Amino acid sequence: MKDQKTQKPKARLPRGFRDRTAAEIAAERAVLDKIRGVYESYGFEPLETPAFEYTDALGKFLPDVDRPNEGVFSLQDDDKQWMSLRYDLTAPLARYVAENFQNLPKPFRRYQVGPVWRNEKPGPGRFREFTQFDADTVGSNSPSADAELLMMACDALEAVGLKHEEYIVKVNSRKVLDGVLESVAIPAAKRGTVLRAVDKLDRLGVDGVILLLGGGRKDESGDFAKGAELDQSQIARIVSFITEKPQDATKDGLFKWWNQIAPEQGYGTIGFDGVGELSKIFEAIGETRPNRIELDSGVVRGLDYYTGPVFEAQLRFGVKNEAGEEVVFGSVAGGGRYDDLVARFTGQQVPATGISIGVSRLLSALKGRSESALSPLVVVLALDDPQSSFKMASELRAAGIRVEAYVGTKKFGDQLKYADKRGAAIAVIEGSDERAKGEVTLKDLALGAELAKTVESRADWVGNREAQISVKRADLAAEVKKMLARK
Amino acid sequence: MKDQKTQKPKARLPRGFRDRTAAEIAAERAVLDKIRGVYESYGFEPLETPAFEYTDALGKFLPDVDRPNEGVFSLQDDDKQWMSLRYDLTAPLARYVAENFQNLPKPFRRYQVGPVWRNEKPGPGRFREFTQFDADTVGSNSPSADAELLMMACDALEAVGLKHEEYIVKVNSRKVLDGVLESVAIPAAKRGTVLRAVDKLDRLGVDGVILLLGGGRKDESGDFAKGAELDQSQIARIVSFITEKPQDATKDGLFKWWNQIAPEQGYGTIGFDGVGELSKIFEAIGETRPNRIELDSGVVRGLDYYTGPVFEAQLRFGVKNEAGEEVVFGSVAGGGRYDDLVARFTGQQVPATGISIGVSRLLSALKGRSESALSPLVVVLALDDPQSSFKMASELRAAGIRVEAYVGTKKFGDQLKYADKRGAAIAVIEGSDERAKGEVTLKDLALGAELAKTVESRADWVGNREAQISVKRADLAAEVKKMLARK
Repeated sequence: MKDQKTQKPKARLPRGFRDRTAAEIAAERAVLDKIRGVYESYGFEPLETPAFEYTDALGKFLPDVDRPNEGVFSLQDDDKQWMSLRYDLTAPLARYVAENFQNLPKPFRRYQVGPVWRNEKPGPGRFREFTQFDADTVGSNSPSADAELLMMACDALEAVGLKHEEYIVKVNSRKVLDGVLESVAIPAAKRGTVLRAVDKLDRLGVDGVILLLGGGRKDESGDFAKGAELDQSQIARIVSFITEKPQDATKDGLFKWWNQIAPEQGYGTIGFDGVGELSKIFEAIGETRPNRIELDSGVVRGLDYYTGPVFEAQLRFGVKNEAGEEVVFGSVAGGGRYDDLVARFTGQQVPATGISIGVSRLLSALKGRSESALSPLVVVLALDDPQSSFKMASELRAAGIRVEAYVGTKKFGDQLKYADKRGAAIAVIEGSDERAKGEVTLKDLALGAELAKTVESRADWVGNREAQISVKRADLAAEVKKMLARK
Repeated sequence: MKDQKTQKPKARLPRGFRDRTAAEIAAERAVLDKIRGVYESYGFEPLETPAFEYTDALGKFLPDVDRPNEGVFSLQDDDKQWMSLRYDLTAPLARYVAENFQNLPKPFRRYQVGPVWRNEKPGPGRFREFTQFDADTVGSNSPSADAELLMMACDALEAVGLKHEEYIVKVNSRKVLDGVLESVAIPAAKRGTVLRAVDKLDRLGVDGVILLLGGGRKDESGDFAKGAELDQSQIARIVSFITEKPQDATKDGLFKWWNQIAPEQGYGTIGFDGVGELSKIFEAIGETRPNRIELDSGVVRGLDYYTGPVFEAQLRFGVKNEAGEEVVFGSVAGGGRYDDLVARFTGQQVPATGISIGVSRLLSALKGRSESALSPLVVVLALDDPQSSFKMASELRAAGIRVEAYVGTKKFGDQLKYADKRGAAIAVIEGSDERAKGEVTLKDLALGAELAKTVESRADWVGNREAQISVKRADLAAEVKKMLARK
């Protein structure tokens, strides 16, 4: 220890990480319990994969990732194999399914909740560890599987307290986008650049996307992002696709829209198939959740592994940022179909679809809505007999009250200040005089603080007895309950 | 994707990590909820620190760690600073307290639950990621703080289902061990080796410890561990200390025992102080939890940072290992006082004490005791109308039933097999004929499986109608509830 004392480490968090305290943890627990309740009611069962996967098993599907290990936290095991911390819960699921395929029911439906890690540049409100809550159906290519996830996502968002009109779940299809690209003869090599350009629609607007599809774009910091170098007519077609949305999501309405957007895409082409899947999804949903699930051809999602329908849930209300400005919150959930992810391991296609709720983002959007999950606290002061104060605490606890026996070494006044700082509702005080009389004093701390504001002198304060009462020691739990009930 | 397909990654878990499925996760959730309930009832509030800490902030306190980075998973951040995954929840707490000292109530009492990671050699039942559930009181040097944690640990172990006689919480003091070492003039440089030797008492027995205190010991694999090279009389004194336990834990009893063990240690020496603290701990506990908390001078705990009392909860019943042999389970919780850990950062001593429940170990000891947290499952088959089967599922869900709408693409018979494999209680079947009549069929899958065993031919089986009934579509939820209630 001596060396360490002379060169003391600084007590600080690594960049991009944070501590979370009681109120936030309680709010998260409440949200997770509600989402879990909905997912379990749909028959999804939990799975937990470890924090680490072999790097090759995770694959590289994060957007804008060109350098090796960029985006993920990786290290080498003793046997020289590279391991990475999971950056999402989908890639580990694909590994799990490939590893256990024979023994799983098909479709295999699981939910998983837990932290994921991204080795990105930290920024305000941008953390490198955050919680995701995923549900996936693996082994079905039926649009019913996608439809169910969209309906379940609505139910989950409403279970945590969002009203119908406060969110919208947007649906699009990678196949439909690919159909547009095919219809205007954009080479496969440019697909990734186009995808990432379209994915920035929300952030950069149509003009930004046009620059990224064309010659390129200089951002606020002066960095230049190379464009996809498409010609004007190609760009025009993509822009009309992402901005002109179909008026109705019936089968007829969707195909009518599609024939205008990509008339070259006849029966059996990739775009045609994509539109057919979307129409089946909307058909299965029917009128169960009106105005909550809609087609939005501007949504493509950033991750590389999606192969068909993609989903994104967005909030419709503004949220105040740290500077107090109203901002559009963006997505709180996303997902889609990824039919090739298991095939990376097995060579055999296993259709799969899933949705992931960004719990940390959802929580910050819900801030202030959920009440504390902790019941009022009672503090038993420690005067001269620790055994007796533990005994009182134990009796109160047995009566269902959250109670803390003071275990510090400070004097009476400091103990009362401590109880105040802890936000306690009541302090229980038993000095030797009181013990001799078989009594105990209950101090109503909230009322005491209230009264303290209105009195001038210490004498007034000491004389003020309304905020504290003497009760029989034998009636302790009953009297504390009575006092708590008056609040 | 093409490259990846030609050189497919193998779907496998990194060494020492594991996946966990529904039954185990549900059992863990139940255990965590119960421990959390107890800790919150004592007024402890949750804290969450991130997975990563700066390596220098974590410090090196794992036993048997000689090489740098051995024992922890570490990597370098972009700015070249070393970060490590937490190996316990105590070192991050010390960092948190040092960083936020001014704003915390003192004592600061928090609980934290979560995974920790150890970069150790994996083995059977020995994982590199496991869950700990910690409670700590920081800022009090009162033995009451230690006593409270011991009592709370008893309450937590009983809340998860252990009977009084099934566990024992053992208490010792590093100060008392140091007093013994001082009394027989063992130099400070040998303290660590002696500590680690004594810590192996459970595993190696007294003879093994004697070898490690003396010339050294060869283990089963033939590896030789160097000993502390103590002389015979020194070894004899340590052995008598760790094997001769006091008859009674009253103040008089403890000091009488101590005067026999280390007569050189008079008033005010480190061992004398340690015995005084132990006696105050036992006094505060009193008769509240008889036969559950006892002094055991053979318990020293492996971690380097303990400075005073140390705790270890052990199970008293044998547990079957993977080979089906009855084995002693060892500790399910441990902790102690670590008064110097915050001072590493601040230079100022902040007394602290804590206890950590090894949740993964506790769970495997409780295996088979806890029932599944999931209610019976109903599967709605998908025949020709996905909208209708989603609608039925939704009605059943609204009635509080856990229900899955089949979203795969297989035919009727395979859907029934799927429902069986999922362990469903009831299958709900609505074909077009039934829909036309306003009816739906409920199939009791458990009863069906029962009956299937007793029939000989396919004709018998098809003719067997006891296991399935036709009900009015409008009565679906009521009829399913009735059928579930019969189970």
